[in-house]
Amino acid sequence: METMTNAITIEKSKTSKIHDVDFENLSFGSTYTDHMLVCDYVDGAWQTPKIIPYQPITLEPSAKIFHYGQSIFEGMKAYKDEAGKAWLFRPLENHKRLNKSAERLAIPELPESFFIEGLTTLLQLEKDWIPETPGSSLYIRPFILASGTGFHASPADAYKFIIACAPSGSYFSGKVRVLIEEKYSRSANGGVGYAKAGGNYAGQFYPTQLAIEKGYNQVIWTDDNNHEYIEEAGAMNIFARINDTLITGPTSDRILDGITRKSILEIAKDEGIDTEVRNITVNEVVQAAKDGTLKEMFGAGTAAVISPIAGFGYKGVDYDLPELSESYATRLKKRITDIQYNRAEDKFGWRYEV
Amino acid sequence: METMTNAITIEKSKTSKIHDVDFENLSFGSTYTDHMLVCDYVDGAWQTPKIIPYQPITLEPSAKIFHYGQSIFEGMKAYKDEAGKAWLFRPLENHKRLNKSAERLAIPELPESFFIEGLTTLLQLEKDWIPETPGSSLYIRPFILASGTGFHASPADAYKFIIACAPSGSYFSGKVRVLIEEKYSRSANGGVGYAKAGGNYAGQFYPTQLAIEKGYNQVIWTDDNNHEYIEEAGAMNIFARINDTLITGPTSDRILDGITRKSILEIAKDEGIDTEVRNITVNEVVQAAKDGTLKEMFGAGTAAVISPIAGFGYKGVDYDLPELSESYATRLKKRITDIQYNRAEDKFGWRYEV
Ligand SMILES: Cc1ncc(COP(=O)(O)O)c(C=O)c1O
Ligand SMILES: Cc1ncc(COP(=O)(O)O)c(C=O)c1O
Repeated sequence: METMTNAITIEKSKTSKIHDVDFENLSFGSTYTDHMLVCDYVDGAWQTPKIIPYQPITLEPSAKIFHYGQSIFEGMKAYKDEAGKAWLFRPLENHKRLNKSAERLAIPELPESFFIEGLTTLLQLEKDWIPETPGSSLYIRPFILASGTGFHASPADAYKFIIACAPSGSYFSGKVRVLIEEKYSRSANGGVGYAKAGGNYAGQFYPTQLAIEKGYNQVIWTDDNNHEYIEEAGAMNIFARINDTLITGPTSDRILDGITRKSILEIAKDEGIDTEVRNITVNEVVQAAKDGTLKEMFGAGTAAVISPIAGFGYKGVDYDLPELSESYATRLKKRITDIQYNRAEDKFGWRYEV
Repeated sequence: METMTNAITIEKSKTSKIHDVDFENLSFGSTYTDHMLVCDYVDGAWQTPKIIPYQPITLEPSAKIFHYGQSIFEGMKAYKDEAGKAWLFRPLENHKRLNKSAERLAIPELPESFFIEGLTTLLQLEKDWIPETPGSSLYIRPFILASGTGFHASPADAYKFIIACAPSGSYFSGKVRVLIEEKYSRSANGGVGYAKAGGNYAGQFYPTQLAIEKGYNQVIWTDDNNHEYIEEAGAMNIFARINDTLITGPTSDRILDGITRKSILEIAKDEGIDTEVRNITVNEVVQAAKDGTLKEMFGAGTAAVISPIAGFGYKGVDYDLPELSESYATRLKKRITDIQYNRAEDKFGWRYEV
């Protein structure tokens, strides 16, 4: 394993913005902490990371990020427990996925030590920024962008790895209504859908806007071939409960291998819930909604945690899901957040102290 | 049509870099001129463009371009004729396509006058940068990036439209060998393949690198469903000549509607060449290569103009294309470049004086 040759340098900001922040009323991802981590890839190697005051980035107009979308990112959270200790959730999984994304986007892989030491050093400095308000956390955004230049569609020769943090409240307010997509797609077979590549998200904006105009919050993506299978919901993996079985689609090159998804699957099994990982057809979900066997659906992802779905639209018809007093969504969300916030035993070994 | 309320402001650079440039040995897209055009979209409107010295761009770390790949671009060229006059080729088509891309990427459309007046004002200032060396031209890169901020996967509220220019030689040196792709894909049905969206290009880098390692220059993209149809070649549309018929695939939501492609189709018809716009299967091309009816293949695009293909690989077998003394590629390239460089009559009305 490649390790850093020098210690991370820290340049502290002269003043703090923390007292301007209303921690009781945090939006999602729009307030940033005092510092950020920056690590440059030049001359064929990742250089020693540095922590500097949060500040603008300056790039050449010909930087490849602007032209060819060569960028990847991760999304993580830091949680504070009642004793004031800070925790991460399965951070090594984020590092592994960052490198999977890097390979597909022809970006040089980042050594594990750069990621983990960079992250923990930054978080130790920003610890006071981790909210204590229930349901809030410090959203962490590690990302890599192509800073190398040239109007030539080929990989850049220079990159920047950056970690920025934003104290955040909840991603969605309340339950969401979703539209099952019949026309647009988010990813191709053999494409980059399984990577957290920037371009995957911009492509979702327009179809999502159309859905919002029709009164939905989010699109449920289906396969691009026949729009036959339920695949993902924006930046969330998707689960359906039919009767008492919890079902989610298998990962593939079209679907992001979500850390929340796989944790939820493990917790559900631990809870004695029947789970199935298999293709879910749109028809099956519509049929189950009609005959009342579709008990619930929810999205799962780091940002939104578990986001219950109130109903869905398909081919101009709206289907409402029942209000359950004992939903899997509520039960699983409690289990996972109890682990994340160190309120319960972590038999899986997922918590990681900062 | 929305028009600018104020004239474009010009801030001239104090010194010029033009004397450092070796115009006889230009690479592609790696030397930039003295000025660039910048136009900001803020508060719901495109502001008056300004021309400023070519310089770095400064953005917040949370700018959406870095996280969600919200960017689009165009590629154009300015040509100088023997009398020293400067010409563009069908620039209104580039503007139209920029706005088609903008719609799909949820970017506000740019009024035509901003594009055309911005472009011509900049080019008048940079006229000396248009190379006179045969085969060289001034490559022009108009692009829009999301400068608005937020770690929330939704469209930005601010954008930058920029035009930068690079005096350039040829994109490929000589004929190219291509690999017909069997695994990876560049675009989905219902996706963003028809748009010049940044993310489409980064997704091509890794499969193209794999092809380069195997000794090819470029990938021929096939449909993501069964890899059955020949679709595009990197940043070029693709043509095949079987017997004496020139064939290219139809445009679709997976394929960029190339300006070179459609111009070549018109010129070919004018030349009395039989043309067909229809799906081309991989099998058909392999079969035609085997029985000798595949006379030639070439890529067509602004950057590479017409790029003849020397041979292709498919399922581990290499197929060579014959050396023709009278190829369509040579004939059509001469016709189109004669129009572009004002060396011949332009019966189509495609030339546009700067
Ligand atoms: C497309 C997509 N699917 C699913 C997820 C959920 O993944 P995770 O649970 O690792 O956050 C995300 C968000 O990270 C995503 O962007
Ligand atoms: C994917 C793709 N296909 C085809 C083309 C050719 O289009 P045009 O002839 O308009 O340059 C380009 C380049 O612009 C491209 O990026």
